[in-house]
Amino acid sequence: MNNASPMVSIVMGSTSDLDVMKKAADLLEQMQIPFEIKVISAHRTPELLHEYTANLSERGIKVIIAGAGGAAHLPGVIAGQTTLPVIGVPVKASISIDGWDSILSILQMPPGVPVATVGLDAARNAAILAVQILALYDEDINKRLQEYKAGQKDKVYNAAQTLEKLDYKYMVK
Amino acid sequence: MNNASPMVSIVMGSTSDLDVMKKAADLLEQMQIPFEIKVISAHRTPELLHEYTANLSERGIKVIIAGAGGAAHLPGVIAGQTTLPVIGVPVKASISIDGWDSILSILQMPPGVPVATVGLDAARNAAILAVQILALYDEDINKRLQEYKAGQKDKVYNAAQTLEKLDYKYMVK
Amino acid sequence: MNNASPMVSIVMGSTSDLDVMKKAADLLEQMQIPFEIKVISAHRTPELLHEYTANLSERGIKVIIAGAGGAAHLPGVIAGQTTLPVIGVPVKASISIDGWDSILSILQMPPGVPVATVGLDAARNAAILAVQILALYDEDINKRLQEYKAGQKDKVYNAAQTLEKLDYKYMVK
Amino acid sequence: MNNASPMVSIVMGSTSDLDVMKKAADLLEQMQIPFEIKVISAHRTPELLHEYTANLSERGIKVIIAGAGGAAHLPGVIAGQTTLPVIGVPVKASISIDGWDSILSILQMPPGVPVATVGLDAARNAAILAVQILALYDEDINKRLQEYKAGQKDKVYNAAQTLEKLDYKYMVK
Amino acid sequence: MNNASPMVSIVMGSTSDLDVMKKAADLLEQMQIPFEIKVISAHRTPELLHEYTANLSERGIKVIIAGAGGAAHLPGVIAGQTTLPVIGVPVKASISIDGWDSILSILQMPPGVPVATVGLDAARNAAILAVQILALYDEDINKRLQEYKAGQKDKVYNAAQTLEKLDYKYMVK
Amino acid sequence: MNNASPMVSIVMGSTSDLDVMKKAADLLEQMQIPFEIKVISAHRTPELLHEYTANLSERGIKVIIAGAGGAAHLPGVIAGQTTLPVIGVPVKASISIDGWDSILSILQMPPGVPVATVGLDAARNAAILAVQILALYDEDINKRLQEYKAGQKDKVYNAAQTLEKLDYKYMVK
Amino acid sequence: MNNASPMVSIVMGSTSDLDVMKKAADLLEQMQIPFEIKVISAHRTPELLHEYTANLSERGIKVIIAGAGGAAHLPGVIAGQTTLPVIGVPVKASISIDGWDSILSILQMPPGVPVATVGLDAARNAAILAVQILALYDEDINKRLQEYKAGQKDKVYNAAQTLEKLDYKYMVK
Amino acid sequence: MNNASPMVSIVMGSTSDLDVMKKAADLLEQMQIPFEIKVISAHRTPELLHEYTANLSERGIKVIIAGAGGAAHLPGVIAGQTTLPVIGVPVKASISIDGWDSILSILQMPPGVPVATVGLDAARNAAILAVQILALYDEDINKRLQEYKAGQKDKVYNAAQTLEKLDYKYMVK
Repeated sequence: MNNASPMVSIVMGSTSDLDVMKKAADLLEQMQIPFEIKVISAHRTPELLHEYTANLSERGIKVIIAGAGGAAHLPGVIAGQTTLPVIGVPVKASISIDGWDSILSILQMPPGVPVATVGLDAARNAAILAVQILALYDEDINKRLQEYKAGQKDKVYNAAQTLEKLDYKYMVK
Repeated sequence: MNNASPMVSIVMGSTSDLDVMKKAADLLEQMQIPFEIKVISAHRTPELLHEYTANLSERGIKVIIAGAGGAAHLPGVIAGQTTLPVIGVPVKASISIDGWDSILSILQMPPGVPVATVGLDAARNAAILAVQILALYDEDINKRLQEYKAGQKDKVYNAAQTLEKLDYKYMVK
Repeated sequence: MNNASPMVSIVMGSTSDLDVMKKAADLLEQMQIPFEIKVISAHRTPELLHEYTANLSERGIKVIIAGAGGAAHLPGVIAGQTTLPVIGVPVKASISIDGWDSILSILQMPPGVPVATVGLDAARNAAILAVQILALYDEDINKRLQEYKAGQKDKVYNAAQTLEKLDYKYMVK
Repeated sequence: MNNASPMVSIVMGSTSDLDVMKKAADLLEQMQIPFEIKVISAHRTPELLHEYTANLSERGIKVIIAGAGGAAHLPGVIAGQTTLPVIGVPVKASISIDGWDSILSILQMPPGVPVATVGLDAARNAAILAVQILALYDEDINKRLQEYKAGQKDKVYNAAQTLEKLDYKYMVK
Repeated sequence: MNNASPMVSIVMGSTSDLDVMKKAADLLEQMQIPFEIKVISAHRTPELLHEYTANLSERGIKVIIAGAGGAAHLPGVIAGQTTLPVIGVPVKASISIDGWDSILSILQMPPGVPVATVGLDAARNAAILAVQILALYDEDINKRLQEYKAGQKDKVYNAAQTLEKLDYKYMVK
Repeated sequence: MNNASPMVSIVMGSTSDLDVMKKAADLLEQMQIPFEIKVISAHRTPELLHEYTANLSERGIKVIIAGAGGAAHLPGVIAGQTTLPVIGVPVKASISIDGWDSILSILQMPPGVPVATVGLDAARNAAILAVQILALYDEDINKRLQEYKAGQKDKVYNAAQTLEKLDYKYMVK
Repeated sequence: MNNASPMVSIVMGSTSDLDVMKKAADLLEQMQIPFEIKVISAHRTPELLHEYTANLSERGIKVIIAGAGGAAHLPGVIAGQTTLPVIGVPVKASISIDGWDSILSILQMPPGVPVATVGLDAARNAAILAVQILALYDEDINKRLQEYKAGQKDKVYNAAQTLEKLDYKYMVK
Repeated sequence: MNNASPMVSIVMGSTSDLDVMKKAADLLEQMQIPFEIKVISAHRTPELLHEYTANLSERGIKVIIAGAGGAAHLPGVIAGQTTLPVIGVPVKASISIDGWDSILSILQMPPGVPVATVGLDAARNAAILAVQILALYDEDINKRLQEYKAGQKDKVYNAAQTLEKLDYKYMVK
């Protein structure tokens, strides 16, 4: 448990999205960003959502990561109730049509109310995007972000070792 | 202007949807169903929407027809704020992706919050569906509905006249 | 077995749709709405369908829930034979193309013959929509509907307990 | 006007499909196949359709060409009411979703009730397919069909003349 | 083994399509229609295909059923080499994109060269369509076809027994 | 001309995207955010892009808005060369497949390299998102953002006047 | 007219594809590559195609560029009749379904028979690809290719002039 | 291990694509073409990619086969950095949307920068295409290619044996 003021809010409409959305939490944990995580439904608990979005900024939250599947209204509805940047994660729900429904429901927001949409089920990328935004004004976070990015490069470099093991006569190493 | 209590509410998120949604009004007018028509945005005026949906039932409204394009949240958000049946009209907006976005955003609602979706830009059909619901308990409306349906048959029968004019040597009339 | 007059008719074209369509029956059972359930094919038993739709209204039925997969004609064909509201459930059949075929075959009905389409495999939502229509004129049903909706809210509220169990150092609770 | 017994029936649900479906009539005329052409709606005049399909075979009709747009049920519904081969023409209606709706509504028929589907708006090809079926047992029709096919080859050969006119320095003729 | 002259030819491009295409053979066997079945590739053995299509008609074949997956050229290429009706079965190959590739490659044939396309993997329906064509001029086949169709109706009627077993308090039987 | 250090960079791959991307510039101008606008191609001038992205942060730029059509690599390639947040605008190019190509090429970025994607041709929304990010740490910008949002509400409220002009007998005002 | 042996063959199935395919000829002309251009249909003139593909290699042709729309079989059928590399251009025909049909018919070739597919209507890119292949073994062609690529860079650099003309107060130049 | 200069380079963005891309290596091995295989990411190691593409031609490489999934930029980005022909393999990644994302990201390249795209996961076909290009100027490789193609024909001919085993009474052998 952490007593710091959360900087990022992770919101989903139902616990069925938790498996996907936990990847956002994992990344924020790894990057040492205080966050909170909530289940609030745009359709079943609209008043609760209203209450929740009313003072996000006052509570120190900078970025909201909202995930939803099917007719995925949650990110867009939140974006209508706050001027904080909202990152939308289209979740491929079990009732989904190959993910197209959640992608289009989040991406195609009307003029004036953008949602920063990431790829299907890409909650981890949503969290990285949140960190990139926070890093703009926080040197510590920026440092951790640069290290994270460097680590990604290393993974690619290390792949050479996997390829070394390939056994082809006509492969030139 | 009409002083009767409206039975149907037509709602859209912006006047850019009016060309499509007017077809619902036209049909209700023709069927002599008192209705009201509103522009309320789920994203830009969420409080107004909340207020509006709070007492629909008390005001005598039985059915809501809601149209929206793109990431079309309006019908679903209304469905989350009332237990009246909501008929959703996917509008092919200018920013739309061939209409898929509005169709999927309205159709694929989560468990517990259905929207009765009709075809793309099919506001007229939405109004007919509303009349079918009202006709369940109103004999006058039902009578007008039966007449309307009979009129549709006539149109098909009358098409024979168009075909008579075709001039083919091998066509058997 | 129940001797009351059924208020809702659940129709499907084949028993292969029963697994999906039973979810409509489950919800109606839970809401104490008398219903009947039939297998009638628009293509293989068109006369049976004709007979069946001829006196639905006289038998007290108010709403039809029709489910079908593939080239899903059943809901639309029924809608052409009655003026009762027809709710269409696109079923993702084993021969389906990701569900697109049943969705479009049900949704895109021609002018004058609407089908109230719900999401893919969303038979439960179809039943809720039916209940919303019945509740317009039946206070008892309306009361049960309000309780059902309240129960949905509770589920969202209870999700907080699931989140409590998450174990992150940087998560603020 | 022609008094021969028609061999092919062209059916559409509304005169709005006539522009497309006339191309089938044109081809049959050219191939000297007696045909009839009808507007009958599967949804608005189901009884008329029933009547019409009841004695097609007795009246000497061998093949039905049925065109429809949107949720295009007409070809499939006819296929359920006759054992004559039904050729379906998906029409790209004005309310269509890029033609996907009519294609899938016609193509994806359930087991036991096939529709011979041709390409979008391809009424001419539907008529050629009808002629190919008739030619199986009618030597005269077959002869005309072979001539028609030979004529198609000629068109391709004649295209060389168009290419002759191209003026490129590096083009080898 | 059968020495009668085959009336229907079933062709596929590779044995990987055999599981699907066998359903056509099963139906023809059940309907007592002599048929042959071949693996010929439009791409890998074009000369063999040319040879094969050259004398189909002379050998007494009336209808070709051709199945293919992916960029499914086989049905269309055959249709270019014969004037017999070709029924195309889009096979959902393992390399397929949800079946769209084979459907569109078979359906969207150019003017003058139609393929009678059936649903995805619907080889059984292809065979029924073939039987419907043969039945136009063969009373024996027609009789078996009528019996087959009647059997389909029975299956729907028998479904009532499945429904009898459903145990709901509010279900009216 | 402006001498302030730019806070936002608008980049596109070709001047053919300028009509869409200018809407981002218009919004930034209206919100008084210093910006720069560049044409740099990920494919045709990769070295120029490398140079450009090398010192964005040092030059004071906080957010990049990158638009591209077709196989729209520009936003993602930039995101691979900087840790600043990149907002991607899928442009519906003339060679585009209904916009699907640019949407998917921008949205579906691999793990570790997110792009904040907005709707098709939604350059204006991209700019609003950029302002929302800048407003997190700049009270002046935040104030202008709040005013902008309030103005949007007013537009919805003013729509009532358009509706007043509708002339229906059964419309309740 | 040119008497050199053609190195590239441009083939299309009908003159209706000429408007698109001429862009390939334009590029080859510009790059001074001798080419020939033919209309041959895989479906209507299969024997002609067979003849044509039989001695391509002997005639000095190195690469074939084949364009087709709808169920676009031409490139794949040619690829089955030669081992020369075949570049396929999906043409968005007037009967096309947004280009998906031609793309998938060309792209999804079976194992062993690849077609090098380029973008929709991208005949110019097909020609560039052909030049890239020819340049592998021809220093002159390679030199012209390098110049062409350099020219492309210049176009991007020159775009700066267009941007100079933009008139924004907050734009930093 | 092989010391010859590699003629083909196989590149992928991550080892998660190795299962698919190994099929290209298998084919090159079988055809005795010296090749190299690399993991380089367009997004995570852009500098490495730049270095790698800088001297491909000098090192004797003639063709690049690049595979990627999701927003698959690797083939296109390489094509922007070399004038060697680049063959793109759309990989159906686990985060993919049925493969559409990788197909469109690779296929729809802008004017001037073509990628020779093959089918989804079709790395083997990519390698055959590479061999077809190499065979244009290398008689040994061409000989092996002709043998490979002949072997493919044999597989189709041998399929007859599988069909012999089918046991149908009405099947004519």
